[in-house]
Amino acid sequence: MKRTALFILTASLCCAAVAQGFQREQFPEGSYSPVTNINPGSYPRVLADRSVMFRVNAPQAQMVQIDLCGKKYDMQKGQNGVWTVTTAPQVEGFHYYSLVVDGVSTADPASRTFYGCSRWSSAIEIPEKGMDDFEIQDVPHGQVRMVDYFSKVENAWRPLWIYTPAGYDETDTQYPVVYIQHGGGEDHRGWIEQGRTAQIMDNLIAAGKAVPMIVVCSNSNVRAQGMRAGGGYSWQGMQTFRTEMVDNIIPFVEKTFRVKKDRKSRAMCGLSMGGGQSFYIGLRDPEVFANVGVFSTGMFGGIAGAANFDLETEVPGMISDTKNFNKTFDVFFLSCGEQDPRISYTRDIVAKMRDAGVDVRFNSYPGDHEWQVWRKSLHEFAQYLFK
Amino acid sequence: MKRTALFILTASLCCAAVAQGFQREQFPEGSYSPVTNINPGSYPRVLADRSVMFRVNAPQAQMVQIDLCGKKYDMQKGQNGVWTVTTAPQVEGFHYYSLVVDGVSTADPASRTFYGCSRWSSAIEIPEKGMDDFEIQDVPHGQVRMVDYFSKVENAWRPLWIYTPAGYDETDTQYPVVYIQHGGGEDHRGWIEQGRTAQIMDNLIAAGKAVPMIVVCSNSNVRAQGMRAGGGYSWQGMQTFRTEMVDNIIPFVEKTFRVKKDRKSRAMCGLSMGGGQSFYIGLRDPEVFANVGVFSTGMFGGIAGAANFDLETEVPGMISDTKNFNKTFDVFFLSCGEQDPRISYTRDIVAKMRDAGVDVRFNSYPGDHEWQVWRKSLHEFAQYLFK
Repeated sequence: MKRTALFILTASLCCAAVAQGFQREQFPEGSYSPVTNINPGSYPRVLADRSVMFRVNAPQAQMVQIDLCGKKYDMQKGQNGVWTVTTAPQVEGFHYYSLVVDGVSTADPASRTFYGCSRWSSAIEIPEKGMDDFEIQDVPHGQVRMVDYFSKVENAWRPLWIYTPAGYDETDTQYPVVYIQHGGGEDHRGWIEQGRTAQIMDNLIAAGKAVPMIVVCSNSNVRAQGMRAGGGYSWQGMQTFRTEMVDNIIPFVEKTFRVKKDRKSRAMCGLSMGGGQSFYIGLRDPEVFANVGVFSTGMFGGIAGAANFDLETEVPGMISDTKNFNKTFDVFFLSCGEQDPRISYTRDIVAKMRDAGVDVRFNSYPGDHEWQVWRKSLHEFAQYLFK
Repeated sequence: MKRTALFILTASLCCAAVAQGFQREQFPEGSYSPVTNINPGSYPRVLADRSVMFRVNAPQAQMVQIDLCGKKYDMQKGQNGVWTVTTAPQVEGFHYYSLVVDGVSTADPASRTFYGCSRWSSAIEIPEKGMDDFEIQDVPHGQVRMVDYFSKVENAWRPLWIYTPAGYDETDTQYPVVYIQHGGGEDHRGWIEQGRTAQIMDNLIAAGKAVPMIVVCSNSNVRAQGMRAGGGYSWQGMQTFRTEMVDNIIPFVEKTFRVKKDRKSRAMCGLSMGGGQSFYIGLRDPEVFANVGVFSTGMFGGIAGAANFDLETEVPGMISDTKNFNKTFDVFFLSCGEQDPRISYTRDIVAKMRDAGVDVRFNSYPGDHEWQVWRKSLHEFAQYLFK
């Protein structure tokens, strides 16, 4: 089958696929190529100290940079037009990055892309030692199901990615449901692809740390007639997504899957913008939800800090009738990364709630406004639910 | 909620998300932004004659090009460093493309990316009038399920994306199964994301043109111990994937899903490299498969043309005992694009088969080596199966 080589060559040229950094060479000792690489055993490489070495073939470029979570690294041009740079040591977890060629921010052909930052972004995964619950283990596995529901708000078919636990197909069990929301510039794929929701739930359920539950990932960037863009923290954005969730998503899920249909069997949670939506929609709809998780939201103060956010205004009764609020919600959980600018006013608001007697659970984790914090938030929140 | 604007701004800067071409301006009359765009109402735009207008903001770049299916278009620098180009009219369907900035071939932040060409590639979808079966319709919908199976060949967990037809959860029916393969430089996502398999099957089944069936999308780039890369047309690549399919994938599917387990209820098909695998594995394993579809494969002659491919050598008995071959296989289907370099030797091989009395169905469709041809191939093949 000699023709093969020629065929493959032609086929790949035909779509200009030039996988980068495939040179067979000495790699720095203790370095590895992350699972986010297209080509195992190539660049980018994570070094022993968790700094990341990038290598890009760009003989004609004037300037090549790596933009890693907002910090730009200038690459140095070396032999044969190959540019290289090694970043500062990174915290463990999942990091979006861009390849910037002469000022144009693009996705790096060397890495897998994920929908984040309002585009398909390159990313690098640096596994955290000991966090095996984020990896596929030899335990019973659930499934992630891609389905479409009809939105009367957008008058269009919209996607849901739904985790069903191991055993769903073999039993008649009815399951409780978590409605989980992505952040700004992300979509329904985020919690599955970046968030490792299926692995987290499989491992928690197998260990008996979480009860079997269904997790519904929806796209909260819902655009009503006349809106230029969906999502956001605006009143209209929140109202529009509330309508989508209560009138379209929940009825579809309860018609299509074997789920419990009482408020105590429903939870809403989310990260950043999705945390704001969970706070706003979850806590203001006690007839719908009895469990709410709010991860790393900017809702409490805006990035700038000044926390003029009034709890009683946003959630009537939380302060004026705290006893009833505490009776109404089985789980009310807040979290934030310890290096996230949102941490200070998140701690302030938790203090205000506790001063008023609000029954709120709070935890923080090492890390900024990033997925490792949100994976850990779900990992903790899921263990409190439906017990 | 004034803080919102500030928050969103900061959040998006934080990951350098600069969605391109979001200027509100006059668009060419009759033009539209394809579903593959990140921002509806932006660039790239498909014009009335199906040429595509690209627009990229790159003030510091020396040269910006669009590589659309292997043809490079130089963009022209205009006001404020915005580069533009309009391509030749394109055939309808799905086209991979790359944004080339000063010689570096990257993904375009303006478009959605798909795994193809051995990387995450930008793409543009130009819908074909009348091909409603490729779109989501208001009919009963199946589900696409992401699952993981353990490969003893790679000694690792590997993904499957599996289409289950509408009604799977509501009945005890056992379904026949199609094992469908992607092309070189693609993976298990291809037939769902680029190929529209779920929409094609939903619509055919709802119209009574195809029987309800399960479709299993696997990643055929299987790397055995010591192999540097998986897949390919080589003897070892074919043998390795045959082992994976017969010993790992099929047993997992038959253990996990409600499927019929006889050979007449199994089909194998694929495109390009996957067509070669279907020909080689499907036809040489009559005890496993009774239905085989081969779309646009290079196996019959290599891109260069000379068809020294010997049918009797590759499939012992096909020519020497044609009567038995015809009795063995319920469906044997070949297809190719009419502008695909593979069309001539595909027609030659079909003629050879028919001269020998082989019962082979063949069809060709307008188009080169591209997804619109493969969508139509599945659309036709599926209607022949399991009847």
